[in-house]
Amino acid sequence: MKSMSINEKRLHERIDALGQIGKIGDTGVCRLALSHEDREGVRLVQAWMAEAGMETIIDPFGNLIGVLEGLDKEAPVLMLGSHIDSQPYGGRYDGVIGVLGAIEAVQTMAEAGIKPSSNIEVVAFCDEEGCRFNKGLFGVRGMTGKLEQGELERTDKNGVTRREALLGFGCDPAAFAGYAFEEGRIGTFLELHIEQGPILEALGEPVGIVSGISGPVWWTVEMTGFAGHAGSVPMPMRQDALVGCAKIIVGLNELASSDPEAPTVGTVGSLSVFPDSRNIIPEKVSFTVDFRDIDVKRRDSMENRLIALMESACAEHGLTYTIREDTRSDPRYCAPRLRTLLREQAALIGLTPPELMSGPFHDALIMSYVCDYGMIFVRCKDGISHNPKEFSSEKDIALGVELLYRTALRLTE
Amino acid sequence: MKSMSINEKRLHERIDALGQIGKIGDTGVCRLALSHEDREGVRLVQAWMAEAGMETIIDPFGNLIGVLEGLDKEAPVLMLGSHIDSQPYGGRYDGVIGVLGAIEAVQTMAEAGIKPSSNIEVVAFCDEEGCRFNKGLFGVRGMTGKLEQGELERTDKNGVTRREALLGFGCDPAAFAGYAFEEGRIGTFLELHIEQGPILEALGEPVGIVSGISGPVWWTVEMTGFAGHAGSVPMPMRQDALVGCAKIIVGLNELASSDPEAPTVGTVGSLSVFPDSRNIIPEKVSFTVDFRDIDVKRRDSMENRLIALMESACAEHGLTYTIREDTRSDPRYCAPRLRTLLREQAALIGLTPPELMSGPFHDALIMSYVCDYGMIFVRCKDGISHNPKEFSSEKDIALGVELLYRTALRLTE
Repeated sequence: MKSMSINEKRLHERIDALGQIGKIGDTGVCRLALSHEDREGVRLVQAWMAEAGMETIIDPFGNLIGVLEGLDKEAPVLMLGSHIDSQPYGGRYDGVIGVLGAIEAVQTMAEAGIKPSSNIEVVAFCDEEGCRFNKGLFGVRGMTGKLEQGELERTDKNGVTRREALLGFGCDPAAFAGYAFEEGRIGTFLELHIEQGPILEALGEPVGIVSGISGPVWWTVEMTGFAGHAGSVPMPMRQDALVGCAKIIVGLNELASSDPEAPTVGTVGSLSVFPDSRNIIPEKVSFTVDFRDIDVKRRDSMENRLIALMESACAEHGLTYTIREDTRSDPRYCAPRLRTLLREQAALIGLTPPELMSGPFHDALIMSYVCDYGMIFVRCKDGISHNPKEFSSEKDIALGVELLYRTALRLTE
Repeated sequence: MKSMSINEKRLHERIDALGQIGKIGDTGVCRLALSHEDREGVRLVQAWMAEAGMETIIDPFGNLIGVLEGLDKEAPVLMLGSHIDSQPYGGRYDGVIGVLGAIEAVQTMAEAGIKPSSNIEVVAFCDEEGCRFNKGLFGVRGMTGKLEQGELERTDKNGVTRREALLGFGCDPAAFAGYAFEEGRIGTFLELHIEQGPILEALGEPVGIVSGISGPVWWTVEMTGFAGHAGSVPMPMRQDALVGCAKIIVGLNELASSDPEAPTVGTVGSLSVFPDSRNIIPEKVSFTVDFRDIDVKRRDSMENRLIALMESACAEHGLTYTIREDTRSDPRYCAPRLRTLLREQAALIGLTPPELMSGPFHDALIMSYVCDYGMIFVRCKDGISHNPKEFSSEKDIALGVELLYRTALRLTE
């Protein structure tokens, strides 16, 4: 295995230092988008970008962008990055290692006297998490021209609008109107992120290469039967909405598990029963359904089988059902050329990273609509994320950043 | 079919008049135990008892008792009755038809100049429902010497103790200490009640004969797995507590339905999920289990199979579970001699009443520990009870009361 090119010590010192801003408990972070803590974090990261040799700006959408000039300033840009905002009860690594890893990669390049063929831009995207205004991926959608009407009027739980929060952050929402994304300006986007799942740990691999970001379908299902006394309505006469719902929960689990080779997942995460009394047969059950796959045909087939299951469960138990579709996203695949390149570069540092699907969203999902993208995942403990217990080892993070550096180098030779 | 002996018009007028006290909406009743409305109801019923030729008292437990003297005052008493307190959002028939039907039976006897062989007592038991102090069957437990420590200190949601409520009702809780139930004093107890279930309606029968009151087992089960991102934890690595719980819901339903001839019932009525978020795999599910049967061996067998199911679901999904047992009651059977007598008397008025189990409790459940008991059920619409929509037709109620009258007559010849 070749020795590491990046400065591991500096990388981990920066991760630790950023973890002090909005720190909760010993290991947690609360750095809500556009908050005072977020601003403080952005200032610190901005200083590190400058230290790495980059010119920096904060665009009107709150994205912090550092530019390392390349030989051909007109050539499509290589963009690297992620986000530094956090969940209210979040960890130190989610997003952060992608931004600080990208700065480390650029600084390593600059210190080696390497001038890239094109500009390299490092971005800390604004409000990836979406927990404050209940709609995320804001900065990356702004930068790529994908905002929707009314986004500036969304409020947080204190009644502060996003417009007000952006103004307080030093941004100018009035500039949105004149902004247009320049097609073709970005050639490639690379994002490094913790896995937020348990696969790499189970495989004993420090890093993985993302095959694509899966497309989730989100439903809210309501099943309705008829209430009755739990002691007096005979089984054959019941219209128990919870029994029907339970068959969907079991069935979804079986459908999503049916092909052990496929990364299909299906979850009922939220459920409420009415009237929710121990001796009354449930009349109504409302529950969420989340199913994702990287293969949209396989997902469609699961969806059809799930609907058939609802029909049969409702027919069997005398129920009716409604489905409200809350989200339907298509899977977005990482570019094969980047997956190959990442695999080749990984081999040079002795790694044979597995390919895996990303269930969660990332900034890269939006970037996938304007350029090729690649993603590196870093192993995290027990798959825990969005929690102060989130943990990735220094060694694993360093390996992920080294791979990012080497790949960025090859892309800008 | 023989003509009716009872005075149907008087019976229905009384049911209507009592339904005016605590009336809610057009058809509902709120007559909470020991409330002002309950007191007003008791006074009215007391007057009707007197009109029927009975001496009346209100005992220290709040039970209204009317006594029709028999030829042999020392012979074991025939007791008839039920309750007139209601649920907060209750109906006009639950309990009421049992009390007013018993008065009608006695008055019919008295008006016919029939002197019973033993005393007949008609009781309106205090606080059968239990919703005010969260523990019911109070009056009948008091009368039969089955109260528990601390019952007088239980409070309603306004902080009023049962002791205070009894005093306000005109009762003397200090007299409890000197009271002892006299074994053998009561020979037989008969209760008429609406079915509170849909069986008679489904069979097209106006009245039914109760075979026994089933014994419920009440559990609160907690299943624990491990939370994770719904998008990133592969199916084989999940420890989804809701999937385990769903298998129990489906399994309980199948177990309770497995013998179509048996009156076994099983219900999960209440359920909560933690953290209850659409994109987080459920870590913990708490749910109630209610299963009842008239056959305790069959219930035991179901219990064992249910526990085996929990073991296997938890093993399959990497979960742990705990069971807290909240209630375990034995089934209490109606006396065969009374079931036979009821069937014979029903035949004389052209009825062939089916036998059916009672899932809900009744005052008769407690009486079963001190004497033989029999119960008559009257058909009710859609099985609805504990609701203003509760409804039984005048014709069906009259047939039930006629059967009660004729059976009481045979028992006191």
